[in-house]
Amino acid sequence: MQNILDDITVLDFSRVFAGPAATQVLGDMGANVIKIEPPAGDEARYYGVTKEKLAELGGVSPSFLALNRNKRSLTLDLRNEKGNRIARELADRADVVVHNFRPGVMERLGLGFDTLSQSNERLVYAEFSAYGRKGPLAHIGANDLALQAHSGLISITGEPDRPPVRCGTAIVDLHGSLALVAGILGALLHRHTTGRGQRVESSLLLSSAHLMSYFYTEYWMDGTVRKPMGTANHLSVPNQAFPARDGEVVIIASTDEMWKKFAHAIDADTLDLPKFARVFDRRQNRVELIAAVSALTTQMTCAEIIDRLGEAKVVVAKVNSVGEAADSEQLEAVDGKIMLQAGAHEFPSVASPFQFSEVDINAAKSPPSLGANTHDILHELGYDSATINSLSNAGAFGRLPEAAE
Amino acid sequence: MQNILDDITVLDFSRVFAGPAATQVLGDMGANVIKIEPPAGDEARYYGVTKEKLAELGGVSPSFLALNRNKRSLTLDLRNEKGNRIARELADRADVVVHNFRPGVMERLGLGFDTLSQSNERLVYAEFSAYGRKGPLAHIGANDLALQAHSGLISITGEPDRPPVRCGTAIVDLHGSLALVAGILGALLHRHTTGRGQRVESSLLLSSAHLMSYFYTEYWMDGTVRKPMGTANHLSVPNQAFPARDGEVVIIASTDEMWKKFAHAIDADTLDLPKFARVFDRRQNRVELIAAVSALTTQMTCAEIIDRLGEAKVVVAKVNSVGEAADSEQLEAVDGKIMLQAGAHEFPSVASPFQFSEVDINAAKSPPSLGANTHDILHELGYDSATINSLSNAGAFGRLPEAAE
Repeated sequence: MQNILDDITVLDFSRVFAGPAATQVLGDMGANVIKIEPPAGDEARYYGVTKEKLAELGGVSPSFLALNRNKRSLTLDLRNEKGNRIARELADRADVVVHNFRPGVMERLGLGFDTLSQSNERLVYAEFSAYGRKGPLAHIGANDLALQAHSGLISITGEPDRPPVRCGTAIVDLHGSLALVAGILGALLHRHTTGRGQRVESSLLLSSAHLMSYFYTEYWMDGTVRKPMGTANHLSVPNQAFPARDGEVVIIASTDEMWKKFAHAIDADTLDLPKFARVFDRRQNRVELIAAVSALTTQMTCAEIIDRLGEAKVVVAKVNSVGEAADSEQLEAVDGKIMLQAGAHEFPSVASPFQFSEVDINAAKSPPSLGANTHDILHELGYDSATINSLSNAGAFGRLPEAAE
Repeated sequence: MQNILDDITVLDFSRVFAGPAATQVLGDMGANVIKIEPPAGDEARYYGVTKEKLAELGGVSPSFLALNRNKRSLTLDLRNEKGNRIARELADRADVVVHNFRPGVMERLGLGFDTLSQSNERLVYAEFSAYGRKGPLAHIGANDLALQAHSGLISITGEPDRPPVRCGTAIVDLHGSLALVAGILGALLHRHTTGRGQRVESSLLLSSAHLMSYFYTEYWMDGTVRKPMGTANHLSVPNQAFPARDGEVVIIASTDEMWKKFAHAIDADTLDLPKFARVFDRRQNRVELIAAVSALTTQMTCAEIIDRLGEAKVVVAKVNSVGEAADSEQLEAVDGKIMLQAGAHEFPSVASPFQFSEVDINAAKSPPSLGANTHDILHELGYDSATINSLSNAGAFGRLPEAAE
């Protein structure tokens, strides 16, 4: 079965999170993704692990393994004239270029949109930046945490009247990765009509604003500035986490009908009372209601609560640990796990978050070791082994890590 | 300038968040989005506001305004034979169908993938579900909070040794919306090659797993189960929020070089010391370092810290409130705001998180009132006014809310 991007070559200059996460999705869709790495490699290769741990894990960090399947690696020193020329040659044959350098860097390397699109008018040129290419913050560096702060996301996350916290995962980066994927696919579609590529942009700023969109709209409409509410939210009661004997569960019973079902599934005598009957009553008597529900759930196990509420069709879910979530039978049942090789070990990684009936990606390629495909990719460009060696001696690929040790 | 999806018709049966957020992006890209609403309307129209407030805001809630521009609204009673037939006729002419009903509902309505694709083989059929169409949880209801819990995201969000919290915004829904967009665009690309549509699936489960991917991979690789760390993370120190005189700032100085720059920008005497010099030292002496930095930042204003660190090229950002973030000059500078009409008022909404050099969406259509385009859309299907009236009398569009009052 032909995969969707089988005839698309992606030249990926991006590093660490959002860019690599995006090109992994394109690779899952069949694209020929060439990961251009600096001689020292994408920093994510070594992220959050010690050298000893890294050796144990087969040479790749968890975050690198999670975001770099279905790619080949080529090291290039873009400041070396010959290395830079190879990048130009690859870009001339590519369908998509992706990068996340600060504004101006690719231009200074002779790899800007205007230059590359002159010789390859079909090129889709995708840029992922911190705050965008214009405006007062265009030249400020940032990362996921910076945009969680800037966007106001931190200000609505946490316990009431306590210091706010970050969302535990890099959601701005990962959301941005899908924004980039959607933009690239949109531009490829447009190319079918026009025959021409174009520049596609996304940023941590746009990605974080999209995540906060309905909060901003509310503020713009009536000035409301929301604050942290723990696991609860302002829309309805109950709609939050409750303690069980062996953990916590979230329970959502927003409508009056749902509340009645919930009350009868747990304890009608204590809960199915006029003071809690209607949406307005439950908001009004929120503190009392939360206390009453908590007193009941504390005596039950998570499994018991989930069974009872599942049967009553009330929305309920266990507050899982990372391990419980990763091991969830459901994730496996919907093909959410993809097995990858890392050295002598085999580890799962998480599938792209959408699936097609006509194509699949079960035969995923494991993340490449640094520069692993340099020779193959140069051969495909038409270079013979002797020339590749002389390019290597001239520093086109940088000092390879073997030599640097 | 032609927009990317100008020739694409999207029939959108979805409600509330993820689906509508996805079709808004498609509408921004030029698609003709027909929002099929039940006679009572998408619940999001009334979300989180009182009836009085709603009237004041021009009849749309903030979350509806945020996620429903560039669409037209048609009310249909899908259980009414004539209403159902109209849906079938529309699907026969559509390029994309989107829905988020529980598994089996569309099939029972005669609007399942197998049925619709028989008469329209070019149809892209996009389904967004809670936990997917198979597996033990396929028939369990869920929402954003439920998947924040199930995925383990809540378990890594919050202060250390305090109850964990939710991420303040509906990130699973919104991330899922982009997953759906990417899947739909992928299937449209594939149709260029094959001439045929296909089924595309995403879910809250796949979306949340993608957001947690590198945590799951770490767990799968070495059993690590991460816990909440406030605004900090496990990768490096300092990499978190610090108090200022008039608010909080996040500061990220992960590498030794960056730490040195940071120390000199703030107070070299107190910070540029051997005990903090190297990554390992800073992790080891974390508590002491955080206290030392906090003691200094508390005496400065946010603006002063940002100025100093910005100049030193250290990543820094203010912990903005929702209002400060929404009003950010930068968001406006990168065209992140789109003006919309709501009744007599004009309010901004947040742009789609990617942009193209060859097309733009400045002329956005405001969200439609319920059923506003029923007649137009039926006319386009070839019905004359007399027939539309008789369909209305037969209940095809349900009892319209005017009649129900």
